[in-house]
Amino acid sequence: MLFAEYFPMWNKLTPAQQDKITGSLISRKAEKGAIIHNGSSDCTGLFFIKSGQLRAYILSDEGREITIYRLFDRDICLLSASCIIRSIQFEITVESEKDTELWIIPAEIYKQIMAESAALANFTSEIMATRFSEVMWLIEQILWKSLDKRVASFLLEESVIQNSPKLKITHEAIANHLGTHREVITRMLHYFQNEKMVILTRGTVEIIDKRKISDLS
Amino acid sequence: MLFAEYFPMWNKLTPAQQDKITGSLISRKAEKGAIIHNGSSDCTGLFFIKSGQLRAYILSDEGREITIYRLFDRDICLLSASCIIRSIQFEITVESEKDTELWIIPAEIYKQIMAESAALANFTSEIMATRFSEVMWLIEQILWKSLDKRVASFLLEESVIQNSPKLKITHEAIANHLGTHREVITRMLHYFQNEKMVILTRGTVEIIDKRKISDLS
Repeated sequence: MLFAEYFPMWNKLTPAQQDKITGSLISRKAEKGAIIHNGSSDCTGLFFIKSGQLRAYILSDEGREITIYRLFDRDICLLSASCIIRSIQFEITVESEKDTELWIIPAEIYKQIMAESAALANFTSEIMATRFSEVMWLIEQILWKSLDKRVASFLLEESVIQNSPKLKITHEAIANHLGTHREVITRMLHYFQNEKMVILTRGTVEIIDKRKISDLS
Repeated sequence: MLFAEYFPMWNKLTPAQQDKITGSLISRKAEKGAIIHNGSSDCTGLFFIKSGQLRAYILSDEGREITIYRLFDRDICLLSASCIIRSIQFEITVESEKDTELWIIPAEIYKQIMAESAALANFTSEIMATRFSEVMWLIEQILWKSLDKRVASFLLEESVIQNSPKLKITHEAIANHLGTHREVITRMLHYFQNEKMVILTRGTVEIIDKRKISDLS
């Protein structure tokens, strides 16, 4: 499949702009668990995901994490090229949650074309607005939704992503997604187990009463 | 003072685009306490603040609030024109915290020019990125900073805005800025009073030990 098919506004670029992108495009594979963008030190470029799964998160000084969004096939990661927009004053880390194949448009090239193409500049705004909306949703969750509901929602979402009710995931990983401590998640999952909503084994959380979890979330 | 002086990239617009903006510009005054943009129902346009002070916040279903940013002289409010960017999928409310004078560029006019001007499209991205960065900062505060530190920071910030150590502000208002309950703020402020950091009277919070509050924040 061609790169152009992954780039929704390809036809609004001039042939010269298209050539510039095609000529600089980097194809890359990232193994599950690899950190492919690392906050302040990197301004790699825009990631276009061919296949796989990425997680973008922020880190506290004490090493706590919270997932701000996840990216799947055909998604675009703009914040890995945050240097193209001066006013982006925050840092994210991106890791691959599965083996992932991606294309990268180098930040410098993208920035040059964005400066002359209103179409690309507006497309970039739309990508940023999508992530901004996800973060606003997250704030509402953190502020106004109790943690039991957030854990229930996360388990349901994860069972869709993993395409199975038996989730391969550690308590630590759930805590890092939701911005809390492992102990808090362990306590919550034991409560869910007592309520016959899940069965816990080492490294897995199996949803056995989807309805009850849906009602809670 | 002319509108052009409030609009940093005015000179990058064509004379035709400048005329279009000048011809559609709305001048408006808002009294302290007025709601000038109301979530889903409005897509008024971009606000350019001549003088005054605005607060943008989100509301929970139960009517709880949290301030997501504040705007002062010469600031621009993009999210009051959220319909110009399709992917902005959240709603904010904007109120004037002081008597405020502003110019409004109608959303439809702005959108038309943004579609043809790379300069304006990129400028718009920068405004959005600034607000996005403020929201990311807010998430970090909510997640990783205890409430006593957040209240201390808020009091210091507010004393700069009000240009006085004696703040005219209710416990309810502080709670609405920080996304918490009035009772929680009252308890915290009483603790601050016991620690000789503030003196509380009806409708005021006076900072009497700025250093101690700074250390805490």
